[in-house]
Amino acid sequence: MTGTLIDGKSIAAGMEQSIKQDIETVVKKIGRKPKLLVILASPDEASKIYVGAKKRKGEEIGIEVDINDLGTKASSAEISRVVQKANLDKSVDGMIVQLPLPSGISGEGIIEQINPNKDVDGLTPFNIGKLAKGGKPSHVPCTAMGIVQLIESTGLKIIGKNVTVVGRSNIVGKPVATLLLQRDATVTICHSKTVDLGMECKHADILIAAIGRPSFITKEWIKDGAVVIDVGINRTADGITGDVDFLGAKEIAGFITPVPGGVGPMTVINLMRNVVTAAKLGAGIE
Amino acid sequence: MTGTLIDGKSIAAGMEQSIKQDIETVVKKIGRKPKLLVILASPDEASKIYVGAKKRKGEEIGIEVDINDLGTKASSAEISRVVQKANLDKSVDGMIVQLPLPSGISGEGIIEQINPNKDVDGLTPFNIGKLAKGGKPSHVPCTAMGIVQLIESTGLKIIGKNVTVVGRSNIVGKPVATLLLQRDATVTICHSKTVDLGMECKHADILIAAIGRPSFITKEWIKDGAVVIDVGINRTADGITGDVDFLGAKEIAGFITPVPGGVGPMTVINLMRNVVTAAKLGAGIE
Repeated sequence: MTGTLIDGKSIAAGMEQSIKQDIETVVKKIGRKPKLLVILASPDEASKIYVGAKKRKGEEIGIEVDINDLGTKASSAEISRVVQKANLDKSVDGMIVQLPLPSGISGEGIIEQINPNKDVDGLTPFNIGKLAKGGKPSHVPCTAMGIVQLIESTGLKIIGKNVTVVGRSNIVGKPVATLLLQRDATVTICHSKTVDLGMECKHADILIAAIGRPSFITKEWIKDGAVVIDVGINRTADGITGDVDFLGAKEIAGFITPVPGGVGPMTVINLMRNVVTAAKLGAGIE
Repeated sequence: MTGTLIDGKSIAAGMEQSIKQDIETVVKKIGRKPKLLVILASPDEASKIYVGAKKRKGEEIGIEVDINDLGTKASSAEISRVVQKANLDKSVDGMIVQLPLPSGISGEGIIEQINPNKDVDGLTPFNIGKLAKGGKPSHVPCTAMGIVQLIESTGLKIIGKNVTVVGRSNIVGKPVATLLLQRDATVTICHSKTVDLGMECKHADILIAAIGRPSFITKEWIKDGAVVIDVGINRTADGITGDVDFLGAKEIAGFITPVPGGVGPMTVINLMRNVVTAAKLGAGIE
């Protein structure tokens, strides 16, 4: 048992304190709480659980969270109208469209319509493009940002490190690769078509697993002393597990995140941070 | 001498034939030649040479190329006005802002203002963001697209291959990494802070050098039979050389691009292709 636990829960709790102070300042300026609109049209039960967690955290720290549940039969045009209305509504600071949407509706097509300043998931093409180009997007995807904060919490210098990102989703794998490249890491992006995944992982000073396959990455694939960030949240018969075989990996890793209590709390707290930033952008104070 | 030459000049010439046919169709529809506006405010002599090459190629194949040379003392506001005017001008199908701009002017800030459909360099945040997300941007950066076409010309399947991209510029390194990731390669992005560049290169089935350092990559760093794409155009006492030590690398590589005559012609022809696409977008026929 050599690996030090990266305690996402307590790091997120620390961030929460400074966000609360920020909220107080914003409330004084705008005369109301920052507001997040969650647009839900998901057939997925897990989505409702995630949305519930966002609402609870928001209310806890002083952010109003409105959930607009359009049901599972919402049309693309209906969802669009809600987005367009929220773009113009000055009382809505930030909005997210909870994916997945009902089958046949393009999430991308909907997300594209969000005003980048209100895009607190950081997923509009404009914000992703600014991020990719090394500019300053209005908002950065929450989980990707949280991963960087977890790595930084270890005190390890990212510059020059070999990073292997397993998984290339738009919400985690690709933006975290971009963020770490900007911090001068040498970044390799792997996925289901990677031929020798074990070798690519073993080579990593920092290993990020975001593939959604329970306990898929075992200790044989982990470099001695590596930082291991497990993004997976897999519901199995044994409860919730990550993408990394935690007990084995912990023997080899220098630092490792638990699941739950690692990346998860960072996602929610960064969403809250983005909502506060959005409120500041809306009020012209950022 | 085992490496087969990848003849960018003849591949570009082949593309030129189909683009010319495309131009004929477009001319019939819109009653005029497609038009590219080049906005030049560059203190850099090389920029004028590049712009001249674009104009010559355009005129050769039936694209009107207007060069608006604002001189080296143009202000940011002046350049912006030209971009805004061209956004609204229906006779301008595509535009590029030739970088670098006079010192103190943000190229990014200017490029952001281009209508994505007219952004034939594919460098607006919107187009880069769509590309990064795996969507369909109006235009893809010309050199990056050209590199993919050169690799495909070898007949090699990209899926599952290890690609090492040396260099992380917005116009080459980052977009080509994205394009190859989309084609299911395992992609590593290296740069000046990479600790063991030789090892990262040696590991590559496909090696892309885009760093601007003459003959920097030598045969010791090349994997037997690799595809080597040399993006460098370095002016040295010995004439123009690439980033790869060509004669040495050719002994080891399976396929290799020469400099000049490799990537260069692909950049120009893809720009022309993007202008034709822009004309189609403008006319609502794409």
